Amino acid sequence: KNGSPMLASSDGAFTFNIKGLFQADAATYNQDSNLPAAVTARDLNSGTNIRRARVIFNGKMFSDFDYNLTFDFGGAGAEDVGRVHEAWVQYSGFKSAKFRVGEFAPSVGLADAGSQGGSAFLERPAAAEMARNVSAGDTRMSIAAFNARDRYLWSFAVTGNTMSSLNTAASGFNTVNNDEQLGIAARIAGTPVKTKDALIHVGLNYSGIINPADTGAAAATRYPVQLRERPELRVDATRLVDSGAINADSASVTGLEFGAQYKSLFLQSEAFDYRIERLNAATGVTNPKFTGWYVEGGWVLTGESRKYNTQTAAFDGVTPAANFDPASGHWGAFELVARYSTLDLNYHDQAALAADRIRGGQQDITSLGLNWQLTPTVRFLFQGQSVEVKRLNAAGDPIGQDYTAFAVRSQFGF
Amino acid sequence: KNGSPMLASSDGAFTFNIKGLFQADAATYNQDSNLPAAVTARDLNSGTNIRRARVIFNGKMFSDFDYNLTFDFGGAGAEDVGRVHEAWVQYSGFKSAKFRVGEFAPSVGLADAGSQGGSAFLERPAAAEMARNVSAGDTRMSIAAFNARDRYLWSFAVTGNTMSSLNTAASGFNTVNNDEQLGIAARIAGTPVKTKDALIHVGLNYSGIINPADTGAAAATRYPVQLRERPELRVDATRLVDSGAINADSASVTGLEFGAQYKSLFLQSEAFDYRIERLNAATGVTNPKFTGWYVEGGWVLTGESRKYNTQTAAFDGVTPAANFDPASGHWGAFELVARYSTLDLNYHDQAALAADRIRGGQQDITSLGLNWQLTPTVRFLFQGQSVEVKRLNAAGDPIGQDYTAFAVRSQFGF
Amino acid sequence: KNGSPMLASSDGAFTFNIKGLFQADAATYNQDSNLPAAVTARDLNSGTNIRRARVIFNGKMFSDFDYNLTFDFGGAGAEDVGRVHEAWVQYSGFKSAKFRVGEFAPSVGLADAGSQGGSAFLERPAAAEMARNVSAGDTRMSIAAFNARDRYLWSFAVTGNTMSSLNTAASGFNTVNNDEQLGIAARIAGTPVKTKDALIHVGLNYSGIINPADTGAAAATRYPVQLRERPELRVDATRLVDSGAINADSASVTGLEFGAQYKSLFLQSEAFDYRIERLNAATGVTNPKFTGWYVEGGWVLTGESRKYNTQTAAFDGVTPAANFDPASGHWGAFELVARYSTLDLNYHDQAALAADRIRGGQQDITSLGLNWQLTPTVRFLFQGQSVEVKRLNAAGDPIGQDYTAFAVRSQFGF
Repeated sequence: KNGSPMLASSDGAFTFNIKGLFQADAATYNQDSNLPAAVTARDLNSGTNIRRARVIFNGKMFSDFDYNLTFDFGGAGAEDVGRVHEAWVQYSGFKSAKFRVGEFAPSVGLADAGSQGGSAFLERPAAAEMARNVSAGDTRMSIAAFNARDRYLWSFAVTGNTMSSLNTAASGFNTVNNDEQLGIAARIAGTPVKTKDALIHVGLNYSGIINPADTGAAAATRYPVQLRERPELRVDATRLVDSGAINADSASVTGLEFGAQYKSLFLQSEAFDYRIERLNAATGVTNPKFTGWYVEGGWVLTGESRKYNTQTAAFDGVTPAANFDPASGHWGAFELVARYSTLDLNYHDQAALAADRIRGGQQDITSLGLNWQLTPTVRFLFQGQSVEVKRLNAAGDPIGQDYTAFAVRSQFGF
Repeated sequence: KNGSPMLASSDGAFTFNIKGLFQADAATYNQDSNLPAAVTARDLNSGTNIRRARVIFNGKMFSDFDYNLTFDFGGAGAEDVGRVHEAWVQYSGFKSAKFRVGEFAPSVGLADAGSQGGSAFLERPAAAEMARNVSAGDTRMSIAAFNARDRYLWSFAVTGNTMSSLNTAASGFNTVNNDEQLGIAARIAGTPVKTKDALIHVGLNYSGIINPADTGAAAATRYPVQLRERPELRVDATRLVDSGAINADSASVTGLEFGAQYKSLFLQSEAFDYRIERLNAATGVTNPKFTGWYVEGGWVLTGESRKYNTQTAAFDGVTPAANFDPASGHWGAFELVARYSTLDLNYHDQAALAADRIRGGQQDITSLGLNWQLTPTVRFLFQGQSVEVKRLNAAGDPIGQDYTAFAVRSQFGF
Repeated sequence: KNGSPMLASSDGAFTFNIKGLFQADAATYNQDSNLPAAVTARDLNSGTNIRRARVIFNGKMFSDFDYNLTFDFGGAGAEDVGRVHEAWVQYSGFKSAKFRVGEFAPSVGLADAGSQGGSAFLERPAAAEMARNVSAGDTRMSIAAFNARDRYLWSFAVTGNTMSSLNTAASGFNTVNNDEQLGIAARIAGTPVKTKDALIHVGLNYSGIINPADTGAAAATRYPVQLRERPELRVDATRLVDSGAINADSASVTGLEFGAQYKSLFLQSEAFDYRIERLNAATGVTNPKFTGWYVEGGWVLTGESRKYNTQTAAFDGVTPAANFDPASGHWGAFELVARYSTLDLNYHDQAALAADRIRGGQQDITSLGLNWQLTPTVRFLFQGQSVEVKRLNAAGDPIGQDYTAFAVRSQFGF
């Protein structure tokens, strides 16, 4: 055990845990100094940010009821205000399925389901992060049925709105919808190969918006669906690719998952197809489709392995064979990681009909990292990334850019 | 016991508890689609909302000092930012009275004092909720003396300002007062009849504003008192009745309480009289008076009873005789509840002198509910309500409406 | 022990504590009613404020790693939103130095390092508070090496940005910097005399801004350094002295510390020198220098002593010999305290060249207080202060004022 405080009743019908997770990031961005004036994010914010600062209360009540109440005080770009990150109650008394209701992110992909306390990189791949946020990401009101066995997991959820939260560095208050979004999120995943040393993971996930939020008759885009994503580092929270708000009838995301592990090596890859069905589209204006994928892998230099978690059907972090203790010659575990990720939010970007064009931009990112795990609860991540964004504005001028960034994450949990 | 984690020192002089309470509401509003243009809340927000998300640290120190530190991350309409909900220290070492200082809601009515974790409806009756917020509601700075015996309770408090808190869906920052409100809140209540099966509760409460907040010489209404209330459901936070800000010298609320219980049945009713004394009123402009009342009752179908809590002189929730466990044929407790509530914020609304008119509107609500208590800590509330608002705007046009709403609350605690 | 809940593993390698601290202030300000129109803070807000509302999770992991995760929900003037106050992990396995990384206030002075739960006054002296906020105050991202022995402490930190946080009573959202501040903070302090009854403390501290934050090419002052401070009471958060934002290349603060204790008496004093090096100053515009100092002392009437804490090289609070228990004739501990504090933010305020003038104002405060400690965890502070501000506006009109204020702090911890 790693020292999380835990209380339990003598009959085992009740348990209670308090856990914490803190991640602070520091980064420098190296951008061209002579970028054209049309480029908007010409000076990304080098500095620091608290990415996650969570306190988690969870446990078991009356034998069959599980619960979780998690608060987060971190954020992207700047710390958001303290808010509920997860809050749910689950009935686990049936063998065939578990039922969960409350605020949580239903399982919808391999990168989505992976532990953020043990992640191989600072952020999820852009394509996976964007996919989960359509109808299944963090702080979403959900009701789900699911089950996880030794070799496979299935999950189905009906999802609603996300929690409102003020970002400290926002430029205005949130707008209140007239009616909130309704969506679904489903996943099936399993391990066709699972031996002592090797493992193959495959999965399929689907999520979608049945009814987009109604932002009121006065809104420029009344039923907006918007796809956009940050460049896999959130010390600056600017999004470099963005479809803009599209008036939509519905939207869907389909994802394919592949993972493999052999001893100290792991590899994972996902590909996503995003579709938006427009509402009352004008003649000649078509329904946009977008794609994104990534491949990433790692090698634990000190010989440990990432653990595959059958409850989430995804990889957990690395537990060092020996904790940091220089006097005994122990330095913890070290892991080398690499990723290539691409996301294309252009659709008919050169169409003759301007209303049919979506110039969201294409983003390609190559990342290399070294992860130093001192104990199961303390680690530092060193990560360099090369970002290439190709994008046109409405006038046809290029507003993309190439840059590199270097980041360090300091993390502890309890 | 219901599994709340608790620590105690071996001599009993110190105890420490951590508790949690989470309530998530989902609702649909069914409004007329052809409401007149003058009606403002023509499309209430169907969707979801986290009503309460609390973590509570409380206990006892040095035998005679009690304390409570409660944070809340929920809200009305949208989640407020994380904030202090209660924080007080209390000396309980005298037999005649307990003394409490800090931030808390002093006892000022039967619905006010009732447990929100065990409430029969999603929200308190409008008349009671409005009454407590004049000078005695949540997050108010207070200093109180009180005592609760087996058959009666008395309480007297001097109260100040409420905690500032940003609402995530607000349209602007809070304004800072020049000087803060000063008020009082008092209550006396007891049980003239109390047998094994039956109980009669009566009570009298009074609260008032001695000095309204001074909002500064530049404010349109420098010393405002404003009475307004939401329609007993807070997925949308719009207030449909509202007196407007009235420049006031003082204000007062008097309430009468009645409650009764016989086995699985309970009934409670309160009536309130609200008065505002205007400051420097012009000739012919009189001091407004308003009224509101409600009656509500419930029947626990499965035979359990609501517990009367002598410490609060109000009703607690239902503890199921057997917890939810379908394999054993147990489904928890079910309760049917009904309420009629009315609140009239019109005063001289047809007066010849416009400055004397207050067209705050009249709101009548009929509610029916079914409450499903799976365990002492997990429950779902299903509630339908019919709302009728009659109100005129300054031009004399009707801006009221009739609608129905259906809501579900999912709740757990630990 | 004072009843803080604590858990520990049987081998002692892990410990876990939960602590709380709550401070609520009430104050009245007595200002002249006929202040000239040019004076801006003519009606300070009498009322109440939650100054600190903290919950602290800290402990030890794997024997040599210490951690702290502290959230605060209080604020100055109005409650800020819930936010991370401290979050760090520390390696204590080396004898020569401890290493800490995360969000915390590095040690940079005698008043800075003193316990806020046991402070002799409601607020730190203005000169000390302003000094620590240059590059070393609360919620600053830092990495530090330090060590504390029985007779001396040394500390060196590299510091970054502070946590972003929305103030509930702000008038706008925070602006996002382009690049964040980089600074350092160092301190050496010790006790040349330390006997059973008497103690002399001396110390030297230095902190500075190496790179001011880059607020972007569009900002009026792109690399601002601003020195300003509140009048040692925060029920109203207005700052009466303020240098304004100065475009800077760097800044530094040097502080001298002196402390003494003899039985129930304590005395402490610090003096600070603040310097700002301007960036690209015009001809004739010089680099400003400011000064501030204070002296304060106290006498515990009931005979107890403030404890000198060698880990912080500063004074802790008073622990009563006998806790409040009137039945036994015990009333806790009482302490009389007094302070004189001055801070001068004028520099060349009568210079012929307007660009060289800084009319930040001079603030002198005399405070008297009576502190009543009922138990180690419950106390009330009664404090009167006389404030004198002399300041000119750009037109040369006096905008200072003299006033008195009276305040009460109610505090409990667990």
